[in-house]
Amino acid sequence: MTQPSEVLTHFDAQGQAHMVDVGDKTATRRIAVATGRIEMLRATLALIASGTAKKGDVLGIARIAGIQGAKKTSDLIPLCHPIGLTRVAVEFEVLHEHNAVTCTATAETVGQTGVEMEALTAVQVALLTIYDMCKAVDRGMTINGVTLLEKHGGKSGSFVAAKPFSGQVF
Amino acid sequence: MTQPSEVLTHFDAQGQAHMVDVGDKTATRRIAVATGRIEMLRATLALIASGTAKKGDVLGIARIAGIQGAKKTSDLIPLCHPIGLTRVAVEFEVLHEHNAVTCTATAETVGQTGVEMEALTAVQVALLTIYDMCKAVDRGMTINGVTLLEKHGGKSGSFVAAKPFSGQVF
Amino acid sequence: MTQPSEVLTHFDAQGQAHMVDVGDKTATRRIAVATGRIEMLRATLALIASGTAKKGDVLGIARIAGIQGAKKTSDLIPLCHPIGLTRVAVEFEVLHEHNAVTCTATAETVGQTGVEMEALTAVQVALLTIYDMCKAVDRGMTINGVTLLEKHGGKSGSFVAAKPFSGQVF
Amino acid sequence: MTQPSEVLTHFDAQGQAHMVDVGDKTATRRIAVATGRIEMLRATLALIASGTAKKGDVLGIARIAGIQGAKKTSDLIPLCHPIGLTRVAVEFEVLHEHNAVTCTATAETVGQTGVEMEALTAVQVALLTIYDMCKAVDRGMTINGVTLLEKHGGKSGSFVAAKPFSGQVF
Amino acid sequence: MTQPSEVLTHFDAQGQAHMVDVGDKTATRRIAVATGRIEMLRATLALIASGTAKKGDVLGIARIAGIQGAKKTSDLIPLCHPIGLTRVAVEFEVLHEHNAVTCTATAETVGQTGVEMEALTAVQVALLTIYDMCKAVDRGMTINGVTLLEKHGGKSGSFVAAKPFSGQVF
Amino acid sequence: MTQPSEVLTHFDAQGQAHMVDVGDKTATRRIAVATGRIEMLRATLALIASGTAKKGDVLGIARIAGIQGAKKTSDLIPLCHPIGLTRVAVEFEVLHEHNAVTCTATAETVGQTGVEMEALTAVQVALLTIYDMCKAVDRGMTINGVTLLEKHGGKSGSFVAAKPFSGQVF
Repeated sequence: MTQPSEVLTHFDAQGQAHMVDVGDKTATRRIAVATGRIEMLRATLALIASGTAKKGDVLGIARIAGIQGAKKTSDLIPLCHPIGLTRVAVEFEVLHEHNAVTCTATAETVGQTGVEMEALTAVQVALLTIYDMCKAVDRGMTINGVTLLEKHGGKSGSFVAAKPFSGQVF
Repeated sequence: MTQPSEVLTHFDAQGQAHMVDVGDKTATRRIAVATGRIEMLRATLALIASGTAKKGDVLGIARIAGIQGAKKTSDLIPLCHPIGLTRVAVEFEVLHEHNAVTCTATAETVGQTGVEMEALTAVQVALLTIYDMCKAVDRGMTINGVTLLEKHGGKSGSFVAAKPFSGQVF
Repeated sequence: MTQPSEVLTHFDAQGQAHMVDVGDKTATRRIAVATGRIEMLRATLALIASGTAKKGDVLGIARIAGIQGAKKTSDLIPLCHPIGLTRVAVEFEVLHEHNAVTCTATAETVGQTGVEMEALTAVQVALLTIYDMCKAVDRGMTINGVTLLEKHGGKSGSFVAAKPFSGQVF
Repeated sequence: MTQPSEVLTHFDAQGQAHMVDVGDKTATRRIAVATGRIEMLRATLALIASGTAKKGDVLGIARIAGIQGAKKTSDLIPLCHPIGLTRVAVEFEVLHEHNAVTCTATAETVGQTGVEMEALTAVQVALLTIYDMCKAVDRGMTINGVTLLEKHGGKSGSFVAAKPFSGQVF
Repeated sequence: MTQPSEVLTHFDAQGQAHMVDVGDKTATRRIAVATGRIEMLRATLALIASGTAKKGDVLGIARIAGIQGAKKTSDLIPLCHPIGLTRVAVEFEVLHEHNAVTCTATAETVGQTGVEMEALTAVQVALLTIYDMCKAVDRGMTINGVTLLEKHGGKSGSFVAAKPFSGQVF
Repeated sequence: MTQPSEVLTHFDAQGQAHMVDVGDKTATRRIAVATGRIEMLRATLALIASGTAKKGDVLGIARIAGIQGAKKTSDLIPLCHPIGLTRVAVEFEVLHEHNAVTCTATAETVGQTGVEMEALTAVQVALLTIYDMCKAVDRGMTINGVTLLEKHGGKSGSFVAAKPFSGQVF
């Protein structure tokens, strides 16, 4: 049977975890875009949507948390390489018809390894921050559809999700 | 209309974000349990399931990452209080029929504020670590159903999710 | 002559630095308030003041940075004790007549040591963040008057600055 | 009226904060020098000045804290890029006639973005550390004149403060 | 045969790692003392010993690094509980006859779990810092004899090493 | 007499600590290998050796901790440059005849400074983690022989320890 260590690069030939050698890779420009959403009660979404003008700006705070989260990726994910990000952007969309907020994060670097995990981490931390700020009124919020939308650059080339926002029911 | 600052405790009367005053709360034993799952290709799940005996142990590494992630919660979530955790446990279940791995995390403290965010952060970081370790063979993995299962302790009392694992299609 | 180690508690009898023993101190409620300001060009202040409604919200981002900075105090200041903060609040005042923004931070804990450094660190990080966000248009901004306004709780009792905002020219 | 998002690069066209894209910038050698001072009671300064020979070495400890603080800049300032510093130096001058200690920090990198924030953060953390170590005898110490002295390298070229140490009363 | 999970508390009954539940433990005063040494060339030790009066103060810097290292213990050791240290002290002894510097670290807390790891981490980081600062002249330095000298407090009571400094050849 | 600041590069001409300027150094591929061991009771080693199949996997957890520790080196060692690691690997060998586990760590980068400290830090954190996980049954464990085995790359060229594993009694 196929062993994990044969195909999962984070394991060596003996099956031991290691931080993969990327020293021979070319430093190229790399970009990754990830997404996810948090679903909630209608009243909770209304509260978020009404938070404007610096008052109760849930999404503004979640955006900052997501950007900072991207910078902590190699500290959170054991086998991630520490890298120098050249750009991070986090956007939200309020979907009233679905009682949800979607988050899309873009990460870029010029380096020897990809930034998928940085984009995904930004999404996760941004959505967790929304949860934190609204949990006093809605403990049942659920995070769904966190996935990679696309990546470009590097030896493995481009990836674009077959169905953008796959897994989303809306 | 109701303003976020009227009901969202992370904002003061002027709508400015702050770390809520918990100095008057009683230090009580608190516990929170959160869950979530990552869905993947059948072949990817087979690789994870075959990782045994220290060889290619994806879930063992994700468990450690989740536990360490719980300890970083107040560093990741801007308005979370720094707290001393007295217990963190992370468990996985491989669901072959659904091509998914579920993660359940439990966090406990004896303190003045709850540990929901710590449990949720553990789940998020554990699932992200699984993504990281398997992404070389499956970039379409998707994280779904991250939510709070239950919490106990503190002034707001107990919460138990109406439908455990709500949002899960399995 | 008086030696530092005779009066500066961060040194032992041999003059060696140490993290002071607070194990015998009573855990009491402690609060500290610190302030500081950043002075800038008139045009820069106008930009900050016009940043509203989630667009260009410099102060909203600086507030979050200050709160998070308070949580990193024991990581930044070598001999500070790690403590569990029960409250952090950061406020700004735009002083058009002085081309300045003042920042006031409040930190609280229930513990064995004071929170002056946490309040001061929040001020410093918040003001640095304003500098960072505006430096593209104004590299000459200057931070002045960073000081402790008051502290309460603990064996050494209360301190209130003789002249609130001492050192301020306005 | 001019909007912040038109001229402040940390905001995009919609006024949302982001970590600016520096991927197209050339990696060049960059240097920044920042300064600041802490003012105190005469007796406090005498204590600092007498701290020699490893005994009560306040400034030696503050220097280390400043250097380490520079390395934490992107962790503290939300929209700062993580960068690899190639040099950090922190110097102090005891000004007996002004009852003050000045701190000057130099940061260097070879990269796509400047190091002004790293130099400023080193100054702030070094001065905060002096405050921490002397606060037992002087709670009224005040930090003033924290500003950028000069920067070189990068597309925006050189900046040299019009009046070095502007804002200092001495 | 005895399984690790039967006696190693960091594993649950299924052999899975977890952060042990200490919520039922009494918060008591706890202390731990650890030691270790770094052996080097005679000329290297002479350099360290001559570093006085703020000039080339290798041991002063290593002391600060050790104290700060103690505060990072729960961030470094996966299953350690985050705790609030009430005291950390790091001492060095220059042993000319053995071409070595010994480091002894003491950590204290009032809490539900012991501080052995904090004391050991302080020793390790302090000795690594000495290595770092002297490696330009002596790459063969070796760290030996890192061990726990004693611990007190908590349910498991006191431990005192049978032979203090066991393993040391001097 | 020779002063530390004449030969120890971490001090400037005045004997003040600084982060050495490496801006003029060429970015080359650099590698370092470090080792160390932890000695324990025979019964403790048997427990570690029997930890297989995801149950009680002490060494698997210590490996992850060591890899993550390497990434924290510049945060732990005051004058270390922050660098981007391109590879980290941590291996263990169980030496039944010596009641010891040896740890060997390899770190690599493409940069302007070496990675000796990263390799040594990985060893130290991995061995500390073994201590943590086994301390409930064996408080007398001792870490010995932590040293650099070899380094390559950079201006100072290669170093290979005269006697690999020098200091080891076995």
